[in-house]
Amino acid sequence: MEFSKEINVAIVGYGVVGNGVAKILEEEKELILKRSGIKINLKKVFTRNWNKKFPYPLPDEKKAYSLDEILDDKDIDIVVELVGGLDFPYKLIKECINRGKHIITANKHLLAEKGKEIFTLAEEKNIRIGFEGAVAGGIPIIKALRESLVGNRIEKIYGILNGTTNYILTEMYGKGKNFNEVLKEAQELGYAEADPTLDINGVDAGHKIAILASLSYGGFLNFSDVYIEGIEDIEKIDIQLGKELGYTLKLLAIAKGYKNNEVEVRVHPTFIPSEHPLAKVDGVFNAIMIKGNNVGESMFYGKGAGSLPTASAVVSDIVDIAKSISLGIGREIEITSMNWEHKDLNLKKVSDFYTRYYIRFMVPDTVGILSKIAGIFAEYNISIAAVIQKEKVVGLYNGANSSDFIPLVLLTHTASENSIQKAIEKVESSNLTKGKAKVIRVEDEEE
Amino acid sequence: MEFSKEINVAIVGYGVVGNGVAKILEEEKELILKRSGIKINLKKVFTRNWNKKFPYPLPDEKKAYSLDEILDDKDIDIVVELVGGLDFPYKLIKECINRGKHIITANKHLLAEKGKEIFTLAEEKNIRIGFEGAVAGGIPIIKALRESLVGNRIEKIYGILNGTTNYILTEMYGKGKNFNEVLKEAQELGYAEADPTLDINGVDAGHKIAILASLSYGGFLNFSDVYIEGIEDIEKIDIQLGKELGYTLKLLAIAKGYKNNEVEVRVHPTFIPSEHPLAKVDGVFNAIMIKGNNVGESMFYGKGAGSLPTASAVVSDIVDIAKSISLGIGREIEITSMNWEHKDLNLKKVSDFYTRYYIRFMVPDTVGILSKIAGIFAEYNISIAAVIQKEKVVGLYNGANSSDFIPLVLLTHTASENSIQKAIEKVESSNLTKGKAKVIRVEDEEE
Repeated sequence: MEFSKEINVAIVGYGVVGNGVAKILEEEKELILKRSGIKINLKKVFTRNWNKKFPYPLPDEKKAYSLDEILDDKDIDIVVELVGGLDFPYKLIKECINRGKHIITANKHLLAEKGKEIFTLAEEKNIRIGFEGAVAGGIPIIKALRESLVGNRIEKIYGILNGTTNYILTEMYGKGKNFNEVLKEAQELGYAEADPTLDINGVDAGHKIAILASLSYGGFLNFSDVYIEGIEDIEKIDIQLGKELGYTLKLLAIAKGYKNNEVEVRVHPTFIPSEHPLAKVDGVFNAIMIKGNNVGESMFYGKGAGSLPTASAVVSDIVDIAKSISLGIGREIEITSMNWEHKDLNLKKVSDFYTRYYIRFMVPDTVGILSKIAGIFAEYNISIAAVIQKEKVVGLYNGANSSDFIPLVLLTHTASENSIQKAIEKVESSNLTKGKAKVIRVEDEEE
Repeated sequence: MEFSKEINVAIVGYGVVGNGVAKILEEEKELILKRSGIKINLKKVFTRNWNKKFPYPLPDEKKAYSLDEILDDKDIDIVVELVGGLDFPYKLIKECINRGKHIITANKHLLAEKGKEIFTLAEEKNIRIGFEGAVAGGIPIIKALRESLVGNRIEKIYGILNGTTNYILTEMYGKGKNFNEVLKEAQELGYAEADPTLDINGVDAGHKIAILASLSYGGFLNFSDVYIEGIEDIEKIDIQLGKELGYTLKLLAIAKGYKNNEVEVRVHPTFIPSEHPLAKVDGVFNAIMIKGNNVGESMFYGKGAGSLPTASAVVSDIVDIAKSISLGIGREIEITSMNWEHKDLNLKKVSDFYTRYYIRFMVPDTVGILSKIAGIFAEYNISIAAVIQKEKVVGLYNGANSSDFIPLVLLTHTASENSIQKAIEKVESSNLTKGKAKVIRVEDEEE
């Protein structure tokens, strides 16, 4: 067994997280050495343009001006990929793996879409891929799933995995503001990017839950089959009406396991009971709830993004991998691999989802409408748990002439997506209502 | 490097947690093998009396009738100590370590009081001690501190580490009940033991925070120096008045790090802002908040006790250690040892605590009292943030003739315990008030 107590690390991509990683590695070098017995040496950092100003400036000898300075350096054991994007980091990581370098990445997009190829190659080459920073920044959810919950079947893993959308929904809920108004404020405050598309449309949360589902259920999945719905069409009226019913609206990412390797993975605006711990997660924070058959429900809460929280996660991977390198060990020390079932996950189709629903119709204020609509739901065996019918409230909801119509909300018991869609279709085609129904799924376990 | 893919485990003590561990090891054997590649064989279990009925009955060949059956068996690599108590498990663990067996224990009492001896011996013998189950049951806080937060200086770690007292305080807060009333109910519901002393008086939470403090700050401490106050004297009036000020009462265990290896460790009833995530942790749940210099604030929430949640933690230690045994590795794989600073912690004295205070006096309903009391606090440079003076409310508080007196509550800004105690002494000796003041510390960071 060969001991080499100094481990050399390189970073590719020197943005927000990269600067944080360099800062921690330099400033906490002594702390890390005292705790782990390992000396981490940040040997080289590559970025395309060193002429910019950086939050954590580096001395010249650490600056790499070509990737080859890192790839060809046999003393560099670990490469931290923090470039973002898809094609370039994919090629880079493959090249590093082929050259025997361990990888750490915070690139959820890449892992969600190319995880199978990357992890399969890494397995062949006995290379470790650390990705604690890819999901929920500073929350150590990857380690918890891989190691702490090894004796649990994960029945369900769900949570708030995107801080931007949680900030927007928190403001809409707390202050009764409109989506566009809050989005603009969030951009001014730096909580939303100039182009917030991947946050708002749910894809970012989708990438993260796809990674968590693979780890929880032990197989890769086809990312384009994940059901994703964003918050761009959320109106404040539904947040308000949900509140009256005792629910809080969150953009939840959900994965549930069933028999025969079948897994349900979805991201969509979701009503959860206002007393649920996730309902109380406000602002840019992230939180993940896991239900294991033995441990019961656990929640992990913290900062899901930002330079130092994410860098803290990357550094924990660096030390983990450095420690095993110093003991002459590769992948074989890992407790749970990404595909421990050794077969792909079988994703449930949307039409087979089975949950509770909040459905808002806009109806004319005339006698008998509720009974007709309820009749149609009964035809499809959908049981109604609660109803709200509101008097005219001008300005509470969008839409021209809306004051001629009033909102009618049905909260159903558990029903299949398929029957819900059919019932709504029938209501809509019967000319009882105006415009399209607003459907929001409700996550609230019934006995 | 020697690979032996089947690792033999023994359990000593077959109570609630022991039964849970056996159940998970047997029923999830395949899951654990698939995930980790390791076959865990529960070889022997020792308990004093096999004639009882057990929730998870074992076949005869797994029953040990003497400890020697386990100690003398060279094929047993890991011993899980679940006996409880102090002297017997201490001797057992030392004997196991001397015989080269790795240890897993959920015995917080033992680790808090004899940790130094045990970990020092384990270090000498290259033996691992797993104790994830000793603190907050199913919450993987030990692994988070050891591994996930390796690149962080822990500024503060605090939380709700005892489910019994949290259940009692939750009921008192939510339903306005008295301590004794709720304690009785908790015992009937099985949330409090027949002898709940160590829960109620804060010592159980003290054991746990002592362990977390060692890990966070890297040294052992003298447990008898930890400041511990229980909830036995909490009156509902203070919970109600605190609520009016925007605070929720919790039994918090708190550790904070200062310069020069100085650490503050304390357990006491504590007011926290009702919007704080810990304030919303209700009933028997546990939660721990960690503030790291890089990761910011993270919270871990889950079941702090119970057969399967604690067993889930014990099993994660078993798999961790089994995995390293299979790779021929001992303690050297651990990232953070219990005493990574290699010197004992220097515990701050109570009189040097520096925090905010809620102080309730009972005063006669006459003019000028508030100004006199406020004057005394000003003498000691204690700044008052808020005052509540209540009209007579018969029955809201305990004490004979109490209706002749009214509660006067001062909420201070940050002050030293020393000056607070002196000011209270002066107020009490001035005959302005009736009986002893009620002092509750407030954890609410000020700018």
